Amino acid sequence: MTPAPILISNVTLHTDCSSPLRHGQWLLCRDGRIHSFGPMATVPDCPEAIQLDGTDRLLMPGLINGHNHCAMTLFRGLADDLELSRWLNEHIFPAEAAHVNEEMVYHCTKLAAAEMILSGTTTVADGYFHEDQAARALCESGMRAVAAHGIVDFPAPGVADPGRNISAVADFISEWKNRDERITPAVFAHSPYTCSPATLRAAKALAREQELPFFIHIAETRQEQKIIMDPQGESPIAHLAALDLLDDDTVLVHCVWLDERDMNTIHTSGAGVITCPQSHLKLASGISRAAAMDEMGIPIGLGTDGSASNNALDLFVELDILAKTQKLQTLEATAMPAARALATATENNAGILGIGKLGKIAPGFKADLILLKLKQPHLQPFYSSDSLVYSGNGSDVETVIINGSIVLLEKKLLSFDLDETLEHVRSLAKPLGHL
Amino acid sequence: MTPAPILISNVTLHTDCSSPLRHGQWLLCRDGRIHSFGPMATVPDCPEAIQLDGTDRLLMPGLINGHNHCAMTLFRGLADDLELSRWLNEHIFPAEAAHVNEEMVYHCTKLAAAEMILSGTTTVADGYFHEDQAARALCESGMRAVAAHGIVDFPAPGVADPGRNISAVADFISEWKNRDERITPAVFAHSPYTCSPATLRAAKALAREQELPFFIHIAETRQEQKIIMDPQGESPIAHLAALDLLDDDTVLVHCVWLDERDMNTIHTSGAGVITCPQSHLKLASGISRAAAMDEMGIPIGLGTDGSASNNALDLFVELDILAKTQKLQTLEATAMPAARALATATENNAGILGIGKLGKIAPGFKADLILLKLKQPHLQPFYSSDSLVYSGNGSDVETVIINGSIVLLEKKLLSFDLDETLEHVRSLAKPLGHL
Repeated sequence: MTPAPILISNVTLHTDCSSPLRHGQWLLCRDGRIHSFGPMATVPDCPEAIQLDGTDRLLMPGLINGHNHCAMTLFRGLADDLELSRWLNEHIFPAEAAHVNEEMVYHCTKLAAAEMILSGTTTVADGYFHEDQAARALCESGMRAVAAHGIVDFPAPGVADPGRNISAVADFISEWKNRDERITPAVFAHSPYTCSPATLRAAKALAREQELPFFIHIAETRQEQKIIMDPQGESPIAHLAALDLLDDDTVLVHCVWLDERDMNTIHTSGAGVITCPQSHLKLASGISRAAAMDEMGIPIGLGTDGSASNNALDLFVELDILAKTQKLQTLEATAMPAARALATATENNAGILGIGKLGKIAPGFKADLILLKLKQPHLQPFYSSDSLVYSGNGSDVETVIINGSIVLLEKKLLSFDLDETLEHVRSLAKPLGHL
Repeated sequence: MTPAPILISNVTLHTDCSSPLRHGQWLLCRDGRIHSFGPMATVPDCPEAIQLDGTDRLLMPGLINGHNHCAMTLFRGLADDLELSRWLNEHIFPAEAAHVNEEMVYHCTKLAAAEMILSGTTTVADGYFHEDQAARALCESGMRAVAAHGIVDFPAPGVADPGRNISAVADFISEWKNRDERITPAVFAHSPYTCSPATLRAAKALAREQELPFFIHIAETRQEQKIIMDPQGESPIAHLAALDLLDDDTVLVHCVWLDERDMNTIHTSGAGVITCPQSHLKLASGISRAAAMDEMGIPIGLGTDGSASNNALDLFVELDILAKTQKLQTLEATAMPAARALATATENNAGILGIGKLGKIAPGFKADLILLKLKQPHLQPFYSSDSLVYSGNGSDVETVIINGSIVLLEKKLLSFDLDETLEHVRSLAKPLGHL
C-alpha cells in the first residue's frame, strides 16, 4: 500500500553532514521517498498530503543503528558491572539458554523497536537467533531492518543441531528475501572463537551467493586472538582475511583492537566497521580507533550493541560518547568532530549496510525522517547541528516517518500497541526478578 | 512560607545507594522535609496534603550537580571540537569579554536552571562572575544552590579592578548569607594559573572566616603544573597543600592528573573532589581516577561543568559516562559500579558541599525529590536501581520537589515562565549566530 504524501512546513532541515542548517523550509514525501524540499516562499499546494507543522522543530534523516541484539532487552540491567567472561559465561549465556525462545524474541524485539523508534532510530541491523521472529517483530513495528541470523558451532536457540547452522540461515533467507521492502535478511557468523574456519567460509559463501550482508564480531577484546578456533592468521583480522571473508559486503563489528596492518587490510578490502563505544566502555574492552579509521577512508558506522551491555538503545547518546571518547583515544579535542560522528549513524551506516538511498535528505532518498523539538532548554541556543551530537538525546524526537509512513506522531507510537508489548515483556521478566 | 504537605502513593522508592528498591510505598513531605514513608498498607490519612500518584513511577533523591558555570548556556555549541587553549583563548574568553554582563548571567543561569530541573537536578554548585545575578536566578528558579563567586587576578566581568577581587566576593557573601535557606554563597578561586599564591591564601581565608565552601579548578590537564603562577609545590595539589588551602571545606574540581602522593594528600586533608567526566573527554583532558579515589575514601562527587564543554546538563547521562569511563580507566568492568556512581551525584555531593541532610530519602532529610516514569521502553524491564545509571536519562523525570515545594509537575515548570527565559536567551544569542 502506498502511503499518503506528507508535507512538513516551517521546519529547520539538517540534510546531511556536510551542509549547513536550512531554516524555514518545507519538505514533501511521496511514494515512500523524499520528493522535494525548499524555502517556505516556494511551498507547494498539496491538499492531499498529511500536513505536519515544523515550527521550532528540526527535520533530519532517521538514525541507523549498525549493531544490536534487539531481543536482549529482556536482559537489560540483569547483570551489570561484571568482567566480560564472567558476564557471558555466568550470566548472559545461562539466561539465554533458559529464556530465549520464539515468544521471547518476538516480544523483546518489539520492545527494542519501540525504544528505537521513540529515540529516532529508523533502521536497525539486528543479529540474533530465532531471527524469523525478530524480522517479524521489526516488520510489524514499521522499522527498516537488516535482520541477520546468528551462526555458532554449538547448539543455539532454534538451531539445536550445529550441523544445521548454515542451512537454518539459508531457510531464513529464503523466507524473508523480497518479502517486505523494509526487511533485508542477512548472515551473522558470531565470531572466530565460536565458529570454525569451515563454518566461517560456509557462512560467507551463503551471503555471497545471496548477495546479502555478512556480519561478524571481531577484535572486541585484547585477548581475542588467544581464543580463536584454529587461527589462520596472526590477528583476528588476518584470520578473516586468510579465510577470504573480507569484501565490501562484510560488516566487521567492534574492531577495538587493531594494529596498522589490520587497518590497512580492512581498508583495502572495502569492508565496513561498526563501533559500539558504550558497550566497549561498559565491558572494559577499550576504545576503537574510529577517528583514525575514518580519516583513512574505512567506512565507520555506529551501533548500540544489545541492551545487556549498554543499556539503552539511544543513538543520540551513542553519538555523543563516540565523539567524546575519540578525543580521549587520541588526546586531541579536534578528533571525531560532531559532523563526522553524525555521519557514522546516518550516511556511513547506510553505505555499510548497503540498503539503498538512505541517511540523507535528498530528492529520491527513502523517506526515513525524524522531527525533533528544538525549543527545549538543553537545545537552546542552537547554533549548529553539533548540538544534535553534544546536547541532543532520543527524547527530543517527536515524530518519526519510515518509508514514507508516520510511525510515531507527537511521541505516540502508531504502528503497534506498546502497552501490550510492555505487558508481555513484564511477564517474561518476572521469573528473572522484575517487579 | 511553609509549603503544603505532599503525599506520594503507590510508588517505588530508591532511598539511597546501599538499600534495595522498595515497591508499593507512600511518602509524606511536611515542612520542607521528608516526614515518613512506608508500605501502602500503612498509608496515613492526610487530607490536607497535595496527593501525587506514584503508580509505575520511581521516587528518588534529587540529583546534585557539583560543578557548573550555569550562565555559560549562552555558549552551548558555539565552539566545539577545539583544543583546550585555543577553545579558551580564541573562543570562550573573547565571547565572555564581549557578552557576559548582569542581564546575560541572570537569564542564561535561569535557562540552565530550567534544564537542570527538567532533568532531575535539584541542587547545583555554580561558579561564575556577576554571581549575585546567578544567585538571584537560581533562587527564583526554586532550586537549591551553592553560588560561588569567581576570583581571578585579572579584570573580570563585574570586577574590573583585580585589586578588589576578594572584597567583591566578601560583599557578595554578606548580601546572600542567611538570605534564603536554599542559597549558600561561596568562594571560587578560579585556578592556580589565574590566581597568585597571595590571592589563593586570601580567598581561602575569606571562606574559612565565613565557614563557607572554597572551590578551585585543579589538575585538569597534564600541562597544568607548567603554567601555575609561582609554584609552591611539585604538583598542582602540592602547590595547594603548601599554601594551606586543603581542608574538608575545600572542593577540588577536576583532579584528572594526580599521582599517588597527591591522592594521599587529598585523602588526609578531608577535601572533596568533583569529577566532570564529559568535560574531561570533550576537551581531551583525560579520565580522572575516580574509582580509585572512591575506594581510598576520598569523597568523590560529580559535576557537568558548564554547557560550553559538555554540552548538556543532564546528570543521568553524566552518571552513565562516569561509570563507563571508570571501567575504561581501570580496564576492569567491575570498577565504579552503578550504585557507587549514583552516590557521587547524591550522598557524596551533599557531603562535599556541606549543605545539610540531603541526597537520601530518610525521615528528617530535606524534601528534594524527583519522580521518574518507569513504564517506558528504555526502562523496561527494571530489575534494580542500576538502570537509573545505565538506561535512565533526564527526560524520564516528570515531577520535581525542592525544599518541600513542587517545582516541576508532570514536566511543566511551575516556578517561572520558561518561554520568557527562552525569549531573553534567544535575543542574547542572536548576535552570536543563533537562528
